[in-house]
Amino acid sequence: MAAHTAYWAAVLFLSLIGVWGFPTGPVFNRDPVCGYKSCPATQPSMLNVHLIPHTHDDVGWLKTVDQYFYGDRNEIQHAGVQYILDSVVEQLQKDPARRFIYVETAFFYRWWRRQNQATRKIVTQLVNEGRLEFINGGWCMSDEATTHYSAVIDQMTLGLRFLNDTFGECGRPRVAWHIDPFGHAREHASMFAQMGFDGFFFGRLDYQDKGRRIRTKEMEMLWRASDTLTPPTADLFTGILPNGYNPPDGFCWDQSCSDAPIRDDPDLEDYNVDQMVFKFLEVAESQATWYKTNHIVMTMGSDFQYENANMWYKNMDKLIHYVNAQQSNGSRVNVLYSTPSCYLQELHRANLTWPLKTDDFFPYADAAHDFWTGYFTSRPALKRYERESNSRLQTCNQLEVLGGPKSRRGPHGEGDSDTMRKAMAVAQHHDAVSGTEKQHVAYDYARRLATGWAHCEVLVSNSLAVLSGSDAPRIYCEGLNISVCPLTESSQKFTMTVYNPLGRAVTWSVRLPVNGTAYSVIDPRGKSVASEVIPVSKATQLIRRDRGYAMYELVFQVQAPPMGFSTYSISMLQTGPPAASPKFRAPRTIQNKYLKVTFDPDTGLLTSLSNLETLQTIKLSQNFYWYNASDGKNKDSDQPSGAYIFRPNSSTPFTVSKTAKIETVQNGVVQEVKQWFSPWISQVVRLYEDSRELELEWTVGPVPVDDDLGKEVITRLDTDILSSGYFYTDSNGREVLERRRDFRPTWDLFQSEPIAGNYYPVNSRVYIKDDANQLTVVTDRSQGGSSILNGSLEIMLHRRLLYDDNRGVGEPLSEPGENENGLVARGRLLLSLSKPATAADTHRPLAQSMVLQPLLSFQQGTLHPNTKLEFSGLQAALPPAVHLLTVSQWEKDLVLLRLEHQFQAKESKTYSQPVTVNLQKLFSTLDVLGASEMSLGANQWKDEMSRLDWKTSGGENMKPRKGMKGTGDAVPWEVTLNPMEIRTFLLRVQQR
Amino acid sequence: MAAHTAYWAAVLFLSLIGVWGFPTGPVFNRDPVCGYKSCPATQPSMLNVHLIPHTHDDVGWLKTVDQYFYGDRNEIQHAGVQYILDSVVEQLQKDPARRFIYVETAFFYRWWRRQNQATRKIVTQLVNEGRLEFINGGWCMSDEATTHYSAVIDQMTLGLRFLNDTFGECGRPRVAWHIDPFGHAREHASMFAQMGFDGFFFGRLDYQDKGRRIRTKEMEMLWRASDTLTPPTADLFTGILPNGYNPPDGFCWDQSCSDAPIRDDPDLEDYNVDQMVFKFLEVAESQATWYKTNHIVMTMGSDFQYENANMWYKNMDKLIHYVNAQQSNGSRVNVLYSTPSCYLQELHRANLTWPLKTDDFFPYADAAHDFWTGYFTSRPALKRYERESNSRLQTCNQLEVLGGPKSRRGPHGEGDSDTMRKAMAVAQHHDAVSGTEKQHVAYDYARRLATGWAHCEVLVSNSLAVLSGSDAPRIYCEGLNISVCPLTESSQKFTMTVYNPLGRAVTWSVRLPVNGTAYSVIDPRGKSVASEVIPVSKATQLIRRDRGYAMYELVFQVQAPPMGFSTYSISMLQTGPPAASPKFRAPRTIQNKYLKVTFDPDTGLLTSLSNLETLQTIKLSQNFYWYNASDGKNKDSDQPSGAYIFRPNSSTPFTVSKTAKIETVQNGVVQEVKQWFSPWISQVVRLYEDSRELELEWTVGPVPVDDDLGKEVITRLDTDILSSGYFYTDSNGREVLERRRDFRPTWDLFQSEPIAGNYYPVNSRVYIKDDANQLTVVTDRSQGGSSILNGSLEIMLHRRLLYDDNRGVGEPLSEPGENENGLVARGRLLLSLSKPATAADTHRPLAQSMVLQPLLSFQQGTLHPNTKLEFSGLQAALPPAVHLLTVSQWEKDLVLLRLEHQFQAKESKTYSQPVTVNLQKLFSTLDVLGASEMSLGANQWKDEMSRLDWKTSGGENMKPRKGMKGTGDAVPWEVTLNPMEIRTFLLRVQQR
Repeated sequence: MAAHTAYWAAVLFLSLIGVWGFPTGPVFNRDPVCGYKSCPATQPSMLNVHLIPHTHDDVGWLKTVDQYFYGDRNEIQHAGVQYILDSVVEQLQKDPARRFIYVETAFFYRWWRRQNQATRKIVTQLVNEGRLEFINGGWCMSDEATTHYSAVIDQMTLGLRFLNDTFGECGRPRVAWHIDPFGHAREHASMFAQMGFDGFFFGRLDYQDKGRRIRTKEMEMLWRASDTLTPPTADLFTGILPNGYNPPDGFCWDQSCSDAPIRDDPDLEDYNVDQMVFKFLEVAESQATWYKTNHIVMTMGSDFQYENANMWYKNMDKLIHYVNAQQSNGSRVNVLYSTPSCYLQELHRANLTWPLKTDDFFPYADAAHDFWTGYFTSRPALKRYERESNSRLQTCNQLEVLGGPKSRRGPHGEGDSDTMRKAMAVAQHHDAVSGTEKQHVAYDYARRLATGWAHCEVLVSNSLAVLSGSDAPRIYCEGLNISVCPLTESSQKFTMTVYNPLGRAVTWSVRLPVNGTAYSVIDPRGKSVASEVIPVSKATQLIRRDRGYAMYELVFQVQAPPMGFSTYSISMLQTGPPAASPKFRAPRTIQNKYLKVTFDPDTGLLTSLSNLETLQTIKLSQNFYWYNASDGKNKDSDQPSGAYIFRPNSSTPFTVSKTAKIETVQNGVVQEVKQWFSPWISQVVRLYEDSRELELEWTVGPVPVDDDLGKEVITRLDTDILSSGYFYTDSNGREVLERRRDFRPTWDLFQSEPIAGNYYPVNSRVYIKDDANQLTVVTDRSQGGSSILNGSLEIMLHRRLLYDDNRGVGEPLSEPGENENGLVARGRLLLSLSKPATAADTHRPLAQSMVLQPLLSFQQGTLHPNTKLEFSGLQAALPPAVHLLTVSQWEKDLVLLRLEHQFQAKESKTYSQPVTVNLQKLFSTLDVLGASEMSLGANQWKDEMSRLDWKTSGGENMKPRKGMKGTGDAVPWEVTLNPMEIRTFLLRVQQR
Repeated sequence: MAAHTAYWAAVLFLSLIGVWGFPTGPVFNRDPVCGYKSCPATQPSMLNVHLIPHTHDDVGWLKTVDQYFYGDRNEIQHAGVQYILDSVVEQLQKDPARRFIYVETAFFYRWWRRQNQATRKIVTQLVNEGRLEFINGGWCMSDEATTHYSAVIDQMTLGLRFLNDTFGECGRPRVAWHIDPFGHAREHASMFAQMGFDGFFFGRLDYQDKGRRIRTKEMEMLWRASDTLTPPTADLFTGILPNGYNPPDGFCWDQSCSDAPIRDDPDLEDYNVDQMVFKFLEVAESQATWYKTNHIVMTMGSDFQYENANMWYKNMDKLIHYVNAQQSNGSRVNVLYSTPSCYLQELHRANLTWPLKTDDFFPYADAAHDFWTGYFTSRPALKRYERESNSRLQTCNQLEVLGGPKSRRGPHGEGDSDTMRKAMAVAQHHDAVSGTEKQHVAYDYARRLATGWAHCEVLVSNSLAVLSGSDAPRIYCEGLNISVCPLTESSQKFTMTVYNPLGRAVTWSVRLPVNGTAYSVIDPRGKSVASEVIPVSKATQLIRRDRGYAMYELVFQVQAPPMGFSTYSISMLQTGPPAASPKFRAPRTIQNKYLKVTFDPDTGLLTSLSNLETLQTIKLSQNFYWYNASDGKNKDSDQPSGAYIFRPNSSTPFTVSKTAKIETVQNGVVQEVKQWFSPWISQVVRLYEDSRELELEWTVGPVPVDDDLGKEVITRLDTDILSSGYFYTDSNGREVLERRRDFRPTWDLFQSEPIAGNYYPVNSRVYIKDDANQLTVVTDRSQGGSSILNGSLEIMLHRRLLYDDNRGVGEPLSEPGENENGLVARGRLLLSLSKPATAADTHRPLAQSMVLQPLLSFQQGTLHPNTKLEFSGLQAALPPAVHLLTVSQWEKDLVLLRLEHQFQAKESKTYSQPVTVNLQKLFSTLDVLGASEMSLGANQWKDEMSRLDWKTSGGENMKPRKGMKGTGDAVPWEVTLNPMEIRTFLLRVQQR
């Protein structure tokens, strides 16, 4: 998107040049020669060893992101990114042959803004000459198992945009680089392809898979990352690095390593040049047998390395010198400084046919009993908070656009979306939402999200003031899920605004903590809304402790328009005893017009689920269990369960209780069966009046460990669906992959962990099906799940462990609760029973509404009569297949829009079809003056994307669709979305 | 001595300019402003805090010197000096305010020779601007307790010369800097003063002493380091650093530290500028109360720090910025980058009167039970090998001068003295000869000395070939002390050359391993020499194992001329049974014409010693004992004995045996009583025919530890001398200090370790005396010694320990012998009984002859008749008071000469007088064309030395004698030496 190649339809965008895209700071000494053009020469007749100097800088893990940046708390881990960048920039200047790649923009950004102009100029020149190359370029290197695609796209966009704004075209990463994440999601590959990356490298994959790929020279492949998108849209060349992301044994010259330096002064003791050269040649020749071309890579770096880059470069200089000097003695090995993209270019030049990969790289095991499937669930509260924060950020973004400049500076003060955007971007890191950080770091992520929200809250209040005309104070209640909200608890009269960030109207059930026993609820059009008051459950009272004293919950259903809000007025009518008390016996059934649920009156457990519209019924029993986490004292392996690793001691989980104590609430708004399994596990089975899904609200914790047993708590749904070992999980909340018990699509699995080895990430949904029935479970956060028994689905909800799993975090995963008894987690599973052919029609929108939930805000008393009580930012609801993925202010008058077709090909007869949206007719308050399409990462014009093409042995070989280079044409107003397509536009807008 | 200030008498030395002294490499951009002139401005009305960025780079300790240089074996200790210098030079360029001092020239030299011209130019400029300042500047930072002054002068000369040759005047260190040595010798201070240093800083002193000095503000003082030399010749301003050599707590910003960096980005978490500034001000104010002026120092660095200097400087830059910014808020603290000399200049400007110090800083204790007195003896074999190597280096130096250029390249190949000089210089390091290094490092020091000697051996052979006219192969026997020498063992006829490096003729007793039973020995003048053949002792047979098979030793006395040699011819006369077998009974007496020694026939132990000339007799019993080394499991303290620390478990040592088995040899050449105390301790009491001293040749080891008790082995001499708690030890082999049991001259001692707290270093001699008798023991190496009982002297001979003493070395001191049973050590004590008034007349020359022993070399068969069998490099023996300290080739035609008056004032009626030597009449084969006097370190003309003068509260205040600056006059040929004076001359010579 750099200006010297970009062209923007002049009529509409004359003013754009210089406003964004073009790096205005640096002065170029000469035309930049970066990217593939800047790659070093290689030796066609030799084995070329590409040394890739790199550092892997976790955006938080054992220390917080800022501690890592500064090098604080070095007693925990020696790591200071400020020094890494200082040092690398220094060392790169010493020799133009030296290269370095940098990956994590969250850190680079922190560093850059503290540099003076002289340093910035130097760095810009290094970038322009390809000596410093940005790789991946997102704000962080996201986790792949527990992230939602929308947050990943956001964090990549944030990082790529900074690079583009700062360095222009030479700052654009060509290669995706996920060297550390613990397994690889197909959806990530798909996103990377759509972001324009030419290739992807990673380090971790199942040890059996790696073994096979080494034997068959399939370490490099073409990954076709979508069943739906037309190749090569989601094709991504993918390479597995030989040694994780570490240097070969004996060649680590970081301050954190103890390998011998090259001692080449013959006058000192222990001259070792000959033995180092010999050893290097041996390593190179051996590694070359794993790969197809006469090029290999060596990753020269590791976690937080290069703080003293001189150590690395000084020794690598010598290595290159002495190894290549052997060429005159007949050696055929040529070693050089390089980068992943330069290596990739050589692979491309080789013009070979590469194997095709169509599934994903989950689960990841690094040894027979070491499955990294625990982190799918680790820190469930953080995972939920992150997911909710994503929803809040989208709301914040939308309201920033809708409210205009006053949203950032308005009656409620100064607000911004940037703080939240950065907090969310940091939270995508593969030791953040993954739950694999130290406890103090988890707190830091949560605090950042809270701070981000505090900034957004002001913005949202300002924007709602603009849109509604009321600048009365606005309260947000963070504690609604534990029935805490001081305003609603104490107020006789208040209003509630429901903001809906979805592109279509939403119906939502609201539960407000109150102390009255009857209320009047009036919708924005003055109509009375049915409501009920029910007692706050005992479980909630226990959790909330002294934070709230509401005795009741006011339950009612609200509606909100697309990308807009509705305001409801609530007045207390009565205090005193409520109309009906809960019944303490098990009902045989609860039902509404769509669903019927039966219970066993003896056990209190579910027995069946019926869809009354489709006349489907399945047997369904559900209960809670825990796997006893291995303590590592085991004859097969000393691997304990930990933050990363799930390793049950036995394949049979313990049942928490065979029966549940029951409390029932049934009224015109909601029917609830409260199940009490133990002092630390309870559940509400809930059916709202107008709901097509059954809600299971689980509460787990504090998980007791006074028996010295670590526990991994699951809930299991057992049905009579003939699932035959198959089940289905989504990939980062988008496309669904078929899973099969004790099976991998690409190699003959030797299954050594019958439970942990069958767990997969569930980001948003998991289902089982047979010809007649599909039971889909939509989750409110990322969790691990599996189907261990036919007809069964299990989801891991919470984990509390007593041992560290020896992957570095150095703490047992045992989240403290308020009373140090352990954390209580609460969440919801939504169950949908459908015909398989139409299941997506339900679960696609359902999952999106679970992700982008309405935001409730409250105002005390009554509103001024002129207040606008209902508003939609859209002219009309989007078509059902279209998801409003991104509406975000980019610059003044520029809005980033992402529209997504949310159905896969063939999954819905009705919706898996192309669908057209008119951009000009989209917004109700904004005129769209122009639109230009961009790559998914919004750092390139779509028609300038030109990815390398790769031949593959399987499937079709399709040439990439290249845009007409350099035209930058504005798109027509009518844009068509094909199934699973996401289209990214930069809109020039004007408030009406 | 830089040429731009030096003037050399033109007639004699026209050719000198450019040959040495002037740095020829670097090109100056401008006139250097280094030294005191380059010091930063301070604030007279504020507290000035001098930050001294520094690194302390041990020239071997846990790793070898070359491992430290390269950063090899970082798993032992992270340390790589090459990177330190790279990094510091880089960082100094960033800001002219930044300073750094560098200390250890052994490392700097290794680094410098690998730098290109561009880097050298940069470094030269940094030095010329005072931004990089050399401090101390010796090859290493020598140990003070176990080094001999001659080796210390040599190592200082080597380092200072490199700096002078490379950088000229700006490379000359102004300040001596012994921040780490474990106690401080007065002789070191005296040498530093004579080398021209303006001041001296160190870190370690007795904790009681430090406490008192803090209370009385006597942390800085004038040290009058000689009883003999006229003040201020040996006066040295001495400062004790506040915090050892470390930064204040919380302000260590090295990669090896974990203190918080200064986090000054308000947009990141944990902004800490305010708290860091507050804490720093607190530390500074508190430290200021210890010192007299409004200047204080903070040593910003520690062991092997600054590998990544950016971390240090970046944070110190911020510290200086933010602390000084507080001045506008009324703060009176001014912090600045500085150096020890800039700090010293401010102290000098303060023009205060400083307290006087006249004793030394031994022993050093850092806590009540933690006396660093074990290392006085640790590694006795290394200590002896180092002492012997010193003698060999002096021989090598002398023969290089005498033999001329052919000595370096001659019939025996290429030789040099430089390798040995550097090996000896490295061995002076305070973790080298001190015995406090890891075992593998001790081996490295020994190997370096062996390699050095191998180079010298060629040089010596070449030179002897030149001087004798015989280039027949020449053999040196390293194993004579265990009766191993293949040539003498197997040869029927051979010659032996005795080279004597002393300035006077020597008589020496020789013992050669042979297998014949009678030999003819012919002196250089053809006279037959009395000789005897005696059996090799059982102890020696045990030690030497399979390395030699001699059954006998041929014993005879030889003589060698001053700085010259004599060659003896030896022929076997007889094999078969020897004339006399040893007697296996205890003799009542052995005696010669000078001494008589009596034994108790029942115990086999000594009972008395008589001087037959002076008619003195003392009771003298002698035996071997061991202290049980504390294992640290003790109620008072958990301190075990270790390489550094001596801590006996009980004040009463265990007696090895109350009786000794005896074997006696008595003949016309030697009388020996061999005492066998246990399988691991034996001794030969030996009296040569012409000897005025009694030799005790002890053999200790392998020290058994299978009883799990660490042992510290001593020998104790108990006499009837009325010593009353007083005893006397030398300081680095020169002046003698009075010691008094349970007493310190400068503070009221609380004695918490009645044995270890009374141990002092014995470098060459220790004595007790009363009015009538003085018993002096001359040692062959440095050892710890004391007088725990009146009339008693004890000397620690060997140590074998089971625990590390927690001072970093991380190994118990348990030297492996050949069979892993532990090392056997063998050595000699020479006992001299005299009247106190004349004792020095004996022990001064005796100790020098113990240090500079004759070198024996052998040639097979008979020599060509023209061979010169006798040679002296001197025209005549030097006067008895004069010791020939240094004769060493400096450059072509230039010889460094040091003449030393070896008597203290008043210790000898005969010799404690001025004595004159004529330089022109000194050498027999060299014409001395000119001479110019230099500082003791040979890096300044004597008449250009101009040291800062200091006022003291005690003693006389004398102005320093300044030479006439800039004249560089050649000295007159007649030079006078006053007691204890060392005069250093550079001679221009020409072979006759």
